[in-house]
Amino acid sequence: MKLLEDRIRRDGRVKAGNVLKVDSFLNHQLDIDLYNEMGKEFRRLFPSDNITKLLTIEASGIGIACIAAQYFHVPVVFAKKSQSINLDGSVYAARVQSFTHGRIYDVIVSEKFLSPADHVLILDDFLANGCAVSGLIELVESAGASIEGVGIAVEKGFQEGGRLLREKGIRVESLAIVESMDADTGEIRFRR
Amino acid sequence: MKLLEDRIRRDGRVKAGNVLKVDSFLNHQLDIDLYNEMGKEFRRLFPSDNITKLLTIEASGIGIACIAAQYFHVPVVFAKKSQSINLDGSVYAARVQSFTHGRIYDVIVSEKFLSPADHVLILDDFLANGCAVSGLIELVESAGASIEGVGIAVEKGFQEGGRLLREKGIRVESLAIVESMDADTGEIRFRR
Repeated sequence: MKLLEDRIRRDGRVKAGNVLKVDSFLNHQLDIDLYNEMGKEFRRLFPSDNITKLLTIEASGIGIACIAAQYFHVPVVFAKKSQSINLDGSVYAARVQSFTHGRIYDVIVSEKFLSPADHVLILDDFLANGCAVSGLIELVESAGASIEGVGIAVEKGFQEGGRLLREKGIRVESLAIVESMDADTGEIRFRR
Repeated sequence: MKLLEDRIRRDGRVKAGNVLKVDSFLNHQLDIDLYNEMGKEFRRLFPSDNITKLLTIEASGIGIACIAAQYFHVPVVFAKKSQSINLDGSVYAARVQSFTHGRIYDVIVSEKFLSPADHVLILDDFLANGCAVSGLIELVESAGASIEGVGIAVEKGFQEGGRLLREKGIRVESLAIVESMDADTGEIRFRR
């Protein structure tokens, strides 16, 4: 998606340790006009009328999923990252290792909000090693629901998450795939 | 806001310990049509053209703020709940005590995204003791920015947060104010 690639080139910052900072428009300060264009593009990429839920994970995925949901006309469910005392009842849970934050956490969704009748599109802001998305897929599978696909804003194509998911036969659509980036020059190359 | 009160009456659940569960439409599974009506109502309540940013806090406030931002045409900034290695540079920070989760945490916003020129509308899903909102106000004040007001989806009117904020002269608009609720009967009364 050229609009997103251009924005990443303009406002993204490459930091040491394979960190791509897009916090001025994507995941700390949020450009809602850009989010709307991303939402329309996710709908174009996943036009199926079978989709019944958008599933994402707190925190950065929530805004992307909410804006996109306006084009899908289905509810958003966001997985929570740790047990909350307000989450009573039974939950689906999966364990996730975050490389960004260097810790292990549980992702949890109430059983009330995923059922075998659901066809789920997973949305998130970043795909790197794929651990968060794999956790979400595990939740969907635990519910006996179907996975319609995975929509990502920015995929780090030089990390293995996207490849591993696609090899499993899951449809992954990333609006921008970073092929390589250089913290010294600031250069960012996208996959064509 | 009658639409929200009706929805809380229909789908909200009162639990022991003054817990009001609205997770089927407001803060775990999200009804985006309802969110849009809430966004329009926030805009009606805060019509000022001075507003430059919507500030909220992860996680449940993000969706509400993103949908509302479409009616304000300004960016959303969400405060993060703990230090992340991806949040480099200088940050504004405030300490918050969460009664719901029984813990103390820091709320953090990058200095890049709040400046003295900003006029900030704070949005969040719940207002009870007001600790989270007070933390956000502290961040805005640290930046030398102006507070245009506080918009809340559901205020627990029987807890002190709303009163304390209004006594400080801050304009607080809550779309539904729960006057009392009863975990035994399930009854919920709203402030008129």
